[in-house]
Amino acid sequence: LADSTTLDQAEAVKGSDLVVICTPLGAYETVIQTIAPHLEAGCIVTDVGSVKEMVIETLSPHIPDGVHLVPGHPIAGTEHSGPEAGFPELFQDRWCILTPTPGTNANAVEHIAALWQTAGMKIEIMEAKHHDHVLAITSHLPHLIAYTIVGTATDLADDLKQEVVKYSASGFRDFTRIAASDPIMWRDIFLNNREAVLDILGRFSEDLTALRRAIRHGEGETLSETFTRTRDVRRKIIDAKQDK
Amino acid sequence: LADSTTLDQAEAVKGSDLVVICTPLGAYETVIQTIAPHLEAGCIVTDVGSVKEMVIETLSPHIPDGVHLVPGHPIAGTEHSGPEAGFPELFQDRWCILTPTPGTNANAVEHIAALWQTAGMKIEIMEAKHHDHVLAITSHLPHLIAYTIVGTATDLADDLKQEVVKYSASGFRDFTRIAASDPIMWRDIFLNNREAVLDILGRFSEDLTALRRAIRHGEGETLSETFTRTRDVRRKIIDAKQDK
Repeated sequence: LADSTTLDQAEAVKGSDLVVICTPLGAYETVIQTIAPHLEAGCIVTDVGSVKEMVIETLSPHIPDGVHLVPGHPIAGTEHSGPEAGFPELFQDRWCILTPTPGTNANAVEHIAALWQTAGMKIEIMEAKHHDHVLAITSHLPHLIAYTIVGTATDLADDLKQEVVKYSASGFRDFTRIAASDPIMWRDIFLNNREAVLDILGRFSEDLTALRRAIRHGEGETLSETFTRTRDVRRKIIDAKQDK
Repeated sequence: LADSTTLDQAEAVKGSDLVVICTPLGAYETVIQTIAPHLEAGCIVTDVGSVKEMVIETLSPHIPDGVHLVPGHPIAGTEHSGPEAGFPELFQDRWCILTPTPGTNANAVEHIAALWQTAGMKIEIMEAKHHDHVLAITSHLPHLIAYTIVGTATDLADDLKQEVVKYSASGFRDFTRIAASDPIMWRDIFLNNREAVLDILGRFSEDLTALRRAIRHGEGETLSETFTRTRDVRRKIIDAKQDK
Protein backbone atom coordinates (compact mmCIF):
# COMPACT_ATOMS: atom_id res chain seq x y z
CA LEU A 1 0.00 0.00 0.00
CA ALA A 2 2.13 2.84 -1.29
CA ASP A 3 -0.34 5.60 -0.45
CA SER A 4 -2.83 5.48 2.31
CA THR A 5 -5.22 8.22 3.28
CA THR A 6 -7.65 7.95 0.38
CA LEU A 7 -7.92 4.24 -0.23
CA ASP A 8 -10.79 3.75 -2.62
CA GLN A 9 -8.74 0.79 -3.75
CA ALA A 10 -9.34 -0.81 -0.34
CA GLU A 11 -11.11 -3.68 -1.99
CA ALA A 12 -7.78 -4.61 -3.55
CA VAL A 13 -6.95 -6.45 -0.32
CA LYS A 14 -9.96 -8.71 -0.87
CA GLY A 15 -8.70 -12.26 -1.24
CA SER A 16 -5.10 -11.26 -0.50
CA ASP A 17 -2.85 -13.72 1.36
CA LEU A 18 -0.53 -10.95 2.46
CA VAL A 19 -0.91 -7.22 3.16
CA VAL A 20 2.21 -5.11 3.88
CA ILE A 21 1.57 -1.66 5.33
CA CYS A 22 4.33 0.75 4.24
CA THR A 23 3.15 4.24 5.19
CA PRO A 24 4.19 6.78 7.81
CA LEU A 25 2.92 5.62 11.21
CA GLY A 26 0.39 8.45 11.40
CA ALA A 27 -1.59 6.89 8.55
CA TYR A 28 -1.95 3.41 10.09
CA GLU A 29 -5.27 4.11 11.82
CA THR A 30 -6.88 5.25 8.57
CA VAL A 31 -5.32 2.43 6.59
CA ILE A 32 -6.50 -0.34 8.88
CA GLN A 33 -9.98 1.13 9.25
CA THR A 34 -10.24 1.26 5.49
CA ILE A 35 -8.97 -2.20 4.69
CA ALA A 36 -10.17 -4.21 7.73
CA PRO A 37 -13.68 -4.93 6.37
CA HIS A 38 -12.12 -6.50 3.29
CA LEU A 39 -9.51 -8.73 4.99
CA GLU A 40 -10.31 -12.42 4.66
CA ALA A 41 -9.52 -15.25 7.09
CA GLY A 42 -6.00 -16.66 6.65
CA CYS A 43 -4.56 -13.34 5.45
CA ILE A 44 -1.34 -12.10 7.08
CA VAL A 45 -1.03 -8.37 7.80
CA THR A 46 2.51 -7.06 8.38
CA ASP A 47 4.21 -3.68 8.25
CA VAL A 48 7.65 -2.04 8.01
CA GLY A 49 7.26 0.74 10.59
CA SER A 50 10.11 1.88 12.85
CA VAL A 51 8.02 1.76 16.07
CA LYS A 52 6.27 -1.43 17.10
CA GLU A 53 4.33 -1.06 20.36
CA MET A 54 2.07 1.69 19.02
CA VAL A 55 1.61 -0.26 15.79
CA ILE A 56 0.24 -3.22 17.72
CA GLU A 57 -2.03 -0.93 19.76
CA THR A 58 -3.31 0.75 16.60
CA LEU A 59 -3.79 -2.28 14.36
CA SER A 60 -4.80 -5.09 16.74
CA PRO A 61 -8.33 -3.90 17.58
CA HIS A 62 -9.19 -3.83 13.86
CA ILE A 63 -7.75 -7.20 12.83
CA PRO A 64 -10.65 -9.60 12.11
CA ASP A 65 -10.74 -13.11 13.56
CA GLY A 66 -8.66 -15.54 11.52
CA VAL A 67 -6.41 -12.77 10.18
CA HIS A 68 -2.79 -12.78 11.47
CA LEU A 69 -0.88 -9.65 12.50
CA VAL A 70 2.93 -9.97 12.32
CA PRO A 71 4.50 -6.55 12.96
CA GLY A 72 7.91 -6.18 11.31
CA HIS A 73 10.78 -3.75 10.98
CA PRO A 74 13.31 -4.36 8.21
CA ILE A 75 16.25 -2.19 9.36
CA ALA A 76 17.60 -1.02 6.04
CA GLY A 77 17.44 2.11 3.97
CA THR A 78 19.10 5.37 3.16
CA GLU A 79 18.05 9.00 3.61
CA HIS A 80 16.04 8.63 0.39
CA SER A 81 12.41 7.50 0.26
CA GLY A 82 10.08 5.94 -2.27
CA PRO A 83 10.32 2.99 -4.67
CA GLU A 84 13.04 4.72 -6.75
CA ALA A 85 15.33 4.73 -3.68
CA GLY A 86 15.52 0.94 -3.68
CA PHE A 87 18.54 -1.00 -4.94
CA PRO A 88 19.37 -4.72 -5.20
CA GLU A 89 21.59 -4.92 -2.08
CA LEU A 90 19.28 -2.83 0.14
CA PHE A 91 18.30 -5.69 2.46
CA GLN A 92 21.40 -7.87 2.07
CA ASP A 93 22.79 -9.01 5.48
CA ARG A 94 20.70 -6.43 7.37
CA TRP A 95 18.51 -7.29 10.34
CA CYS A 96 14.74 -7.57 10.21
CA ILE A 97 13.04 -7.51 13.61
CA LEU A 98 9.62 -9.15 13.99
CA THR A 99 7.55 -8.41 17.09
CA PRO A 100 4.60 -10.86 17.17
CA THR A 101 2.49 -10.89 20.31
CA PRO A 102 2.45 -14.16 22.36
CA GLY A 103 -0.76 -15.43 20.75
CA THR A 104 0.34 -14.99 17.15
CA ASN A 105 0.08 -17.93 14.76
CA ALA A 106 3.62 -19.38 14.49
CA ASN A 107 3.10 -20.31 10.87
CA ALA A 108 2.27 -16.71 9.95
CA VAL A 109 5.47 -15.52 11.67
CA GLU A 110 7.43 -18.13 9.70
CA HIS A 111 5.96 -16.85 6.44
CA ILE A 112 7.02 -13.24 7.11
CA ALA A 113 10.46 -14.37 8.26
CA ALA A 114 10.84 -16.33 5.01
CA LEU A 115 9.78 -13.28 2.98
CA TRP A 116 12.56 -11.09 4.39
CA GLN A 117 15.09 -13.90 4.33
CA THR A 118 14.45 -14.26 0.63
CA ALA A 119 15.40 -10.59 0.29
CA GLY A 120 18.68 -11.36 2.08
CA MET A 121 17.82 -10.28 5.62
CA LYS A 122 18.64 -11.87 8.98
CA ILE A 123 15.65 -12.31 11.32
CA GLU A 124 15.34 -11.47 15.00
CA ILE A 125 12.19 -11.98 17.08
CA MET A 126 11.75 -9.42 19.82
CA GLU A 127 9.19 -8.04 22.23
CA ALA A 128 7.68 -4.81 20.80
CA LYS A 129 8.51 -2.66 23.84
CA HIS A 130 12.11 -3.83 23.80
CA HIS A 131 12.39 -3.12 20.07
CA ASP A 132 11.21 0.44 20.64
CA HIS A 133 13.75 0.95 23.42
CA VAL A 134 16.69 -0.37 21.36
CA LEU A 135 15.69 1.61 18.27
CA ALA A 136 15.25 4.78 20.32
CA ILE A 137 18.98 4.54 21.07
CA THR A 138 20.37 3.24 17.78
CA SER A 139 18.17 5.17 15.39
CA HIS A 140 15.68 7.67 16.82
CA LEU A 141 18.07 9.63 19.07
CA PRO A 142 20.80 9.82 16.38
CA HIS A 143 18.26 11.17 13.90
CA LEU A 144 16.93 13.72 16.38
CA ILE A 145 20.46 14.90 17.19
CA ALA A 146 21.33 15.15 13.51
CA TYR A 147 18.16 17.11 12.74
CA THR A 148 18.93 19.43 15.66
CA ILE A 149 22.53 20.22 14.76
CA VAL A 150 21.66 20.82 11.12
CA GLY A 151 18.76 22.99 12.29
CA THR A 152 21.10 25.00 14.53
CA ALA A 153 23.36 25.63 11.52
CA THR A 154 20.35 26.59 9.40
CA ASP A 155 19.54 29.40 11.82
CA LEU A 156 22.97 31.01 11.40
CA ALA A 157 23.48 34.22 9.44
CA ASP A 158 23.67 33.62 5.68
CA ASP A 159 27.40 34.25 5.22
CA LEU A 160 28.28 31.95 8.11
CA LYS A 161 25.89 29.32 6.74
CA GLN A 162 27.75 29.35 3.43
CA GLU A 163 31.02 28.70 5.23
CA VAL A 164 29.46 25.83 7.16
CA VAL A 165 28.60 24.21 3.83
CA LYS A 166 32.09 24.93 2.47
CA TYR A 167 33.91 23.35 5.41
CA SER A 168 31.31 20.68 6.18
CA ALA A 169 33.77 17.83 5.51
CA SER A 170 35.29 18.33 8.96
CA GLY A 171 32.45 16.53 10.75
CA PHE A 172 29.21 18.39 10.10
CA ARG A 173 28.63 16.64 6.78
CA ASP A 174 28.12 13.25 8.45
CA PHE A 175 25.05 14.65 10.23
CA THR A 176 23.44 16.26 7.20
CA ARG A 177 22.94 12.94 5.45
CA ILE A 178 20.62 11.46 8.04
CA ALA A 179 19.02 14.88 8.62
CA ALA A 180 17.83 14.73 4.99
CA SER A 181 15.47 11.82 5.75
CA ASP A 182 11.72 12.07 5.18
CA PRO A 183 10.20 14.66 7.58
CA ILE A 184 6.74 13.09 7.88
CA MET A 185 8.09 9.60 8.50
CA TRP A 186 10.31 10.95 11.27
CA ARG A 187 7.66 13.19 12.79
CA ASP A 188 5.50 10.10 13.20
CA ILE A 189 8.33 8.03 14.67
CA PHE A 190 8.93 10.58 17.43
CA LEU A 191 5.23 11.03 18.14
CA ASN A 192 4.76 7.24 18.37
CA ASN A 193 7.84 6.34 20.40
CA ARG A 194 7.65 9.26 22.79
CA GLU A 195 8.47 7.60 26.11
CA ALA A 196 11.54 5.68 24.93
CA VAL A 197 12.88 8.68 22.99
CA LEU A 198 12.40 11.09 25.91
CA ASP A 199 14.12 8.63 28.25
CA ILE A 200 17.27 8.25 26.17
CA LEU A 201 17.22 11.95 25.27
CA GLY A 202 17.23 12.76 28.98
CA ARG A 203 20.36 10.65 29.49
CA PHE A 204 22.02 12.22 26.47
CA SER A 205 21.25 15.75 27.70
CA GLU A 206 22.73 15.00 31.12
CA ASP A 207 25.90 13.64 29.53
CA LEU A 208 26.17 16.64 27.21
CA THR A 209 25.74 19.04 30.14
CA ALA A 210 28.54 17.25 32.01
CA LEU A 211 30.90 17.66 29.04
CA ARG A 212 29.86 21.28 28.61
CA ARG A 213 30.69 21.91 32.25
CA ALA A 214 34.05 20.18 31.83
CA ILE A 215 34.87 22.45 28.88
CA ARG A 216 33.81 25.58 30.77
CA HIS A 217 35.92 24.67 33.81
CA GLY A 218 38.86 23.37 31.77
CA GLU A 219 38.63 19.85 33.18
CA GLY A 220 40.84 18.10 30.63
CA GLU A 221 40.84 14.75 32.37
CA THR A 222 37.03 14.40 32.23
CA LEU A 223 37.19 15.10 28.49
CA SER A 224 40.00 12.71 27.62
CA GLU A 225 38.50 9.93 29.75
CA THR A 226 35.14 10.24 27.99
CA PHE A 227 36.75 10.42 24.56
CA THR A 228 38.81 7.30 25.31
CA ARG A 229 35.86 5.19 26.47
CA THR A 230 33.93 5.85 23.26
CA ARG A 231 36.61 4.27 21.05
CA ASP A 232 35.71 0.85 22.38
CA VAL A 233 32.18 0.92 20.94
CA ARG A 234 33.52 1.71 17.49
CA ARG A 235 35.86 -1.27 17.72
CA LYS A 236 32.93 -3.55 18.63
CA ILE A 237 30.93 -2.30 15.65
CA ILE A 238 33.86 -3.05 13.34
CA ASP A 239 34.22 -6.51 14.95
CA ALA A 240 30.49 -7.13 14.34
CA LYS A 241 31.01 -6.11 10.68
CA GLN A 242 28.32 -3.42 11.01
CA ASP A 243 30.62 -0.53 10.07
CA LYS A 244 29.72 -0.41 6.39
CA LEU B 1 57.96 17.27 14.97
CA ALA B 2 56.16 14.01 15.48
CA ASP B 3 56.63 13.93 19.24
CA SER B 4 56.91 16.96 21.40
CA THR B 5 57.29 16.98 25.14
CA THR B 6 60.86 15.71 25.39
CA LEU B 7 62.61 17.40 22.54
CA ASP B 8 66.26 16.74 23.02
CA GLN B 9 66.36 16.88 19.24
CA ALA B 10 65.44 20.58 19.44
CA GLU B 11 68.62 21.51 17.72
CA ALA B 12 67.31 19.74 14.63
CA VAL B 13 65.48 22.97 13.78
CA LYS B 14 68.81 24.79 13.58
CA GLY B 15 69.24 26.09 10.03
CA SER B 16 65.76 24.91 9.00
CA ASP B 17 63.84 26.97 6.42
CA LEU B 18 60.55 25.50 7.57
CA VAL B 19 59.22 24.09 10.85
CA VAL B 20 55.77 22.44 10.90
CA ILE B 21 54.30 21.84 14.36
CA CYS B 22 52.02 18.77 14.30
CA THR B 23 51.25 17.95 17.93
CA PRO B 24 48.15 18.20 20.09
CA LEU B 25 47.57 21.87 21.00
CA GLY B 26 48.46 21.26 24.65
CA ALA B 27 52.06 20.59 23.68
CA TYR B 28 52.62 23.83 21.71
CA GLU B 29 53.91 25.85 24.67
CA THR B 30 56.61 23.26 25.44
CA VAL B 31 57.46 22.80 21.77
CA ILE B 32 57.96 26.48 21.04
CA GLN B 33 59.92 27.10 24.28
CA THR B 34 62.19 24.22 23.35
CA ILE B 35 62.82 25.12 19.72
CA ALA B 36 62.66 28.95 19.83
CA PRO B 37 66.34 29.45 20.82
CA HIS B 38 67.38 27.44 17.77
CA LEU B 39 65.20 29.14 15.15
CA GLU B 40 67.18 31.22 12.68
CA ALA B 41 66.14 34.39 10.82
CA GLY B 42 64.18 33.67 7.62
CA CYS B 43 62.69 30.46 8.97
CA ILE B 44 58.92 29.95 8.61
CA VAL B 45 57.05 28.32 11.49
CA THR B 46 53.65 26.87 10.67
CA ASP B 47 51.30 24.32 12.25
CA VAL B 48 48.31 22.11 11.47
CA GLY B 49 46.23 22.68 14.63
CA SER B 50 42.42 22.83 14.59
CA VAL B 51 42.23 26.03 16.68
CA LYS B 52 44.02 29.19 15.57
CA GLU B 53 43.54 32.11 17.97
CA MET B 54 45.11 30.28 20.93
CA VAL B 55 47.91 29.05 18.66
CA ILE B 56 48.83 32.63 17.81
CA GLU B 57 48.65 33.65 21.47
CA THR B 58 50.84 30.72 22.49
CA LEU B 59 53.46 30.85 19.75
CA SER B 60 53.81 34.57 18.93
CA PRO B 61 55.62 35.70 22.11
CA HIS B 62 58.34 33.10 21.48
CA ILE B 63 58.94 33.71 17.77
CA PRO B 64 62.33 35.43 17.35
CA ASP B 65 62.72 38.54 15.17
CA GLY B 66 63.07 37.65 11.51
CA VAL B 67 61.23 34.34 11.92
CA HIS B 68 57.79 34.15 10.27
CA LEU B 69 54.73 32.57 11.91
CA VAL B 70 52.05 31.36 9.45
CA PRO B 71 49.36 29.43 11.38
CA GLY B 72 47.60 26.85 9.21
CA HIS B 73 44.81 24.30 9.33
CA PRO B 74 44.66 21.70 6.57
CA ILE B 75 41.08 20.41 6.93
CA ALA B 76 41.55 16.79 6.01
CA GLY B 77 41.81 13.52 7.84
CA THR B 78 39.93 10.53 9.12
CA GLU B 79 39.30 9.21 12.61
CA HIS B 80 42.75 7.60 12.47
CA SER B 81 45.94 9.33 13.62
CA GLY B 82 49.65 9.04 12.94
CA PRO B 83 51.77 8.73 9.79
CA GLU B 84 50.32 5.29 8.94
CA ALA B 85 46.86 6.89 8.63
CA GLY B 86 47.96 8.93 5.62
CA PHE B 87 47.01 8.06 2.04
CA PRO B 88 47.74 9.66 -1.35
CA GLU B 89 44.39 11.44 -1.78
CA LEU B 90 44.19 12.72 1.82
CA PHE B 91 44.55 16.41 0.92
CA GLN B 92 43.14 16.31 -2.61
CA ASP B 93 40.56 19.10 -3.19
CA ARG B 94 40.22 19.80 0.54
CA TRP B 95 40.48 23.25 2.05
CA CYS B 96 43.50 24.54 3.94
CA ILE B 97 42.87 27.66 6.01
CA LEU B 98 45.77 29.99 6.81
CA THR B 99 45.35 32.63 9.52
CA PRO B 100 48.34 35.00 9.34
CA THR B 101 48.17 38.13 11.49
CA PRO B 102 48.13 41.51 9.67
CA GLY B 103 51.89 42.05 10.02
CA THR B 104 52.93 38.67 8.60
CA ASN B 105 55.45 38.57 5.74
CA ALA B 106 53.40 38.01 2.56
CA ASN B 107 56.15 35.92 1.00
CA ALA B 108 56.09 33.49 3.93
CA VAL B 109 52.33 33.11 3.55
CA GLU B 110 52.82 32.42 -0.16
CA HIS B 111 55.32 29.68 0.63
CA ILE B 112 52.97 27.86 3.00
CA ALA B 113 50.09 28.23 0.55
CA ALA B 114 52.27 26.71 -2.17
CA LEU B 115 53.21 23.81 0.12
CA TRP B 116 49.60 22.76 0.65
CA GLN B 117 48.63 23.45 -2.94
CA THR B 118 51.33 21.02 -4.01
CA ALA B 119 49.59 18.41 -1.85
CA GLY B 120 46.35 19.14 -3.72
CA MET B 121 44.65 21.54 -1.31
CA LYS B 122 42.65 24.71 -1.93
CA ILE B 123 43.74 27.71 0.14
CA GLU B 124 41.64 30.17 2.11
CA ILE B 125 43.03 33.07 4.16
CA MET B 126 40.96 33.89 7.22
CA GLU B 127 41.10 35.81 10.48
CA ALA B 128 41.97 33.41 13.34
CA LYS B 129 38.94 34.28 15.47
CA HIS B 130 36.60 33.71 12.53
CA HIS B 131 38.27 30.38 11.74
CA ASP B 132 37.66 29.23 15.32
CA HIS B 133 34.00 30.24 15.13
CA VAL B 134 33.39 28.43 11.82
CA LEU B 135 35.23 25.29 12.92
CA ALA B 136 33.37 25.25 16.24
CA ILE B 137 30.20 24.73 14.19
CA THR B 138 31.43 22.48 11.38
CA SER B 139 33.81 20.30 13.35
CA HIS B 140 34.07 20.81 17.11
CA LEU B 141 30.35 20.66 17.94
CA PRO B 142 29.74 17.60 15.71
CA HIS B 143 32.62 15.78 17.40
CA LEU B 144 31.39 16.71 20.88
CA ILE B 145 27.88 15.50 20.03
CA ALA B 146 29.21 12.27 18.58
CA TYR B 147 31.40 11.64 21.62
CA THR B 148 28.41 12.32 23.86
CA ILE B 149 25.94 10.02 22.14
CA VAL B 150 28.45 7.17 21.96
CA GLY B 151 29.28 7.81 25.62
CA THR B 152 25.59 7.64 26.52
CA ALA B 153 25.37 4.26 24.79
CA THR B 154 28.53 3.09 26.55
CA ASP B 155 26.86 3.64 29.92
CA LEU B 156 23.97 1.30 29.08
CA ALA B 157 23.64 -2.15 30.63
CA ASP B 158 25.82 -4.73 28.87
CA ASP B 159 23.06 -6.67 27.10
CA LEU B 160 21.50 -3.47 25.76
CA LYS B 161 24.93 -2.25 24.66
CA GLN B 162 25.39 -5.42 22.61
CA GLU B 163 22.12 -4.77 20.83
CA VAL B 164 23.14 -1.18 20.13
CA VAL B 165 26.21 -2.54 18.35
CA LYS B 166 24.11 -5.12 16.50
CA TYR B 167 21.57 -2.61 15.18
CA SER B 168 23.98 0.32 14.85
CA ALA B 169 23.45 0.59 11.08
CA SER B 170 20.17 2.45 11.67
CA GLY B 171 21.91 5.76 12.46
CA PHE B 172 24.11 5.29 15.51
CA ARG B 173 27.02 3.89 13.48
CA ASP B 174 27.58 7.25 11.71
CA PHE B 175 28.41 8.82 15.06
CA THR B 176 30.81 6.15 16.25
CA ARG B 177 33.27 6.81 13.46
CA ILE B 178 34.06 10.38 14.45
CA ALA B 179 33.83 9.46 18.13
CA ALA B 180 36.82 7.16 17.54
CA SER B 181 39.13 10.12 16.91
CA ASP B 182 42.20 10.78 19.05
CA PRO B 183 41.16 11.67 22.63
CA ILE B 184 44.12 13.92 23.49
CA MET B 185 43.90 15.88 20.27
CA TRP B 186 40.21 16.51 20.91
CA ARG B 187 40.62 17.30 24.59
CA ASP B 188 43.02 20.05 23.58
CA ILE B 189 40.74 21.40 20.86
CA PHE B 190 37.89 21.87 23.33
CA LEU B 191 40.14 23.39 25.98
CA ASN B 192 41.60 25.82 23.44
CA ASN B 193 38.41 26.87 21.64
CA ARG B 194 36.26 27.12 24.73
CA GLU B 195 34.32 30.31 24.03
CA ALA B 196 33.28 29.48 20.47
CA VAL B 197 32.38 25.89 21.38
CA LEU B 198 30.31 26.93 24.41
CA ASP B 199 28.51 29.52 22.30
CA ILE B 200 27.39 27.10 19.58
CA LEU B 201 26.74 24.39 22.15
CA GLY B 202 24.36 26.78 23.93
CA ARG B 203 22.40 27.30 20.72
CA PHE B 204 22.34 23.56 20.02
CA SER B 205 21.06 22.80 23.53
CA GLU B 206 18.27 25.35 23.18
CA ASP B 207 17.21 23.84 19.87
CA LEU B 208 17.31 20.32 21.28
CA THR B 209 15.22 21.36 24.27
CA ALA B 210 12.63 22.85 21.91
CA LEU B 211 12.37 19.58 19.95
CA ARG B 212 12.23 17.58 23.17
CA ARG B 213 9.34 19.74 24.34
CA ALA B 214 7.60 19.28 20.97
CA ILE B 215 7.89 15.49 21.32
CA ARG B 216 6.61 15.53 24.89
CA HIS B 217 3.61 17.66 23.97
CA GLY B 218 2.95 15.87 20.68
CA GLU B 219 3.48 18.99 18.56
CA GLY B 220 3.82 17.29 15.17
CA GLU B 221 3.94 20.48 13.15
CA THR B 222 7.00 21.81 14.99
CA LEU B 223 8.76 18.53 14.28
CA SER B 224 7.90 18.26 10.58
CA GLU B 225 8.76 21.94 9.97
CA THR B 226 12.19 21.52 11.56
CA PHE B 227 12.86 18.28 9.71
CA THR B 228 11.89 19.91 6.40
CA ARG B 229 14.16 22.95 6.83
CA THR B 230 17.23 20.76 7.41
CA ARG B 231 16.97 19.07 4.01
CA ASP B 232 18.02 22.29 2.31
CA VAL B 233 21.48 22.31 3.92
CA ARG B 234 22.15 18.79 2.68
CA ARG B 235 21.22 19.87 -0.85
CA LYS B 236 23.68 22.79 -0.64
CA ILE B 237 26.47 20.46 0.50
CA ILE B 238 25.78 18.16 -2.44
CA ASP B 239 25.76 21.19 -4.79
CA ALA B 240 29.12 22.29 -3.34
CA LYS B 241 30.46 18.75 -4.00
CA GLN B 242 31.44 18.39 -0.33
CA ASP B 243 29.26 15.33 0.27
CA LYS B 244 31.99 12.76 -0.32
